[in-house]
Amino acid sequence: MVLKLIKALVFLAPGFEEIETSIIVDLLRRANVEVTIAGLTNDSITGAHEMKVIPDKSIDNVDVIDFNAVICPGGSPGYKNLRKNKKVITIIQKAFNSNKLIAAICASPAVLSDAGVLNGKACTIYPGMENELKKGGGIYENNIVVMDGNIITSKGPATAFQFTIKIIEELIGKETANYVGQKVLLYEIA
Amino acid sequence: MVLKLIKALVFLAPGFEEIETSIIVDLLRRANVEVTIAGLTNDSITGAHEMKVIPDKSIDNVDVIDFNAVICPGGSPGYKNLRKNKKVITIIQKAFNSNKLIAAICASPAVLSDAGVLNGKACTIYPGMENELKKGGGIYENNIVVMDGNIITSKGPATAFQFTIKIIEELIGKETANYVGQKVLLYEIA
Repeated sequence: MVLKLIKALVFLAPGFEEIETSIIVDLLRRANVEVTIAGLTNDSITGAHEMKVIPDKSIDNVDVIDFNAVICPGGSPGYKNLRKNKKVITIIQKAFNSNKLIAAICASPAVLSDAGVLNGKACTIYPGMENELKKGGGIYENNIVVMDGNIITSKGPATAFQFTIKIIEELIGKETANYVGQKVLLYEIA
Repeated sequence: MVLKLIKALVFLAPGFEEIETSIIVDLLRRANVEVTIAGLTNDSITGAHEMKVIPDKSIDNVDVIDFNAVICPGGSPGYKNLRKNKKVITIIQKAFNSNKLIAAICASPAVLSDAGVLNGKACTIYPGMENELKKGGGIYENNIVVMDGNIITSKGPATAFQFTIKIIEELIGKETANYVGQKVLLYEIA
């Protein structure tokens, strides 16, 4: 039996939310997903709270065909930098057309809305930004994680654990998701 | 009235836990604490899950006297690299002798144990590592965050929100801590 490696692309834009990005990357790697942090630039990128992270690759050097999932962390101005980047929008649209898993958290469901992949889909976003979903035909649902078809959305930093656990469930399965949740003590929080 | 800026030193060791480090830094900066990420080296440092972060300064260029709090994120081998670094141990001991706030999460309460600052103190650590506390005279308590005197300890990645909220409460106050918790949606998680 040949086990095919599951691969995920995580965007890194200037002004990214540090907590969301590290929860997504860390939990996926604990689940043995091969994660590529794709930077909007090649160099180190500064987050919304001044943490400097070096991406694995530039988005110029990734091909969406290689990935099972495409994930947008939030943060401001991170989500604004994602939405105005044509390559980001094209990658999301190509992923959608190939029925790959697409996920966004915090303010970044607005980026999916711009890309036109939320039309008719149940989804969520950071509180106060619900209109961004409606613009793209998304149907707002007040839950911390919402999945509809191949789209997973979530609300913000403190929901990033549940968001990523859901992604792992979809990409690999419940057993691995539970294992990772247990290792990071997610079930010790009352 | 002159408001004195509250300052925190956060260690960054090779093999640091990415989630814990970013939750600590991000929440403290949201609370307007001036955070210095002090790297064990000057260059970019790779975390336990291969995220590369550039520290603000090297620990060679920080003086503990400038800080109100000294904080150890966990991660493996991060905590091992902290415990074998003489400067780290000295900084913790000096902070303790000046009655500054000292905090450690995940495996890193073991570093405080080595530094001799847990003797007779109630504290906690990542599950399975309780013996590390006893070696230094610490008294293990099975809670997600434990405070005794000027020492705050916590269990792991998913408890890093509550850990940092407690640090903010002590450094600034409950109102700011609640404000930050609300902004990151901590109270939306059931």
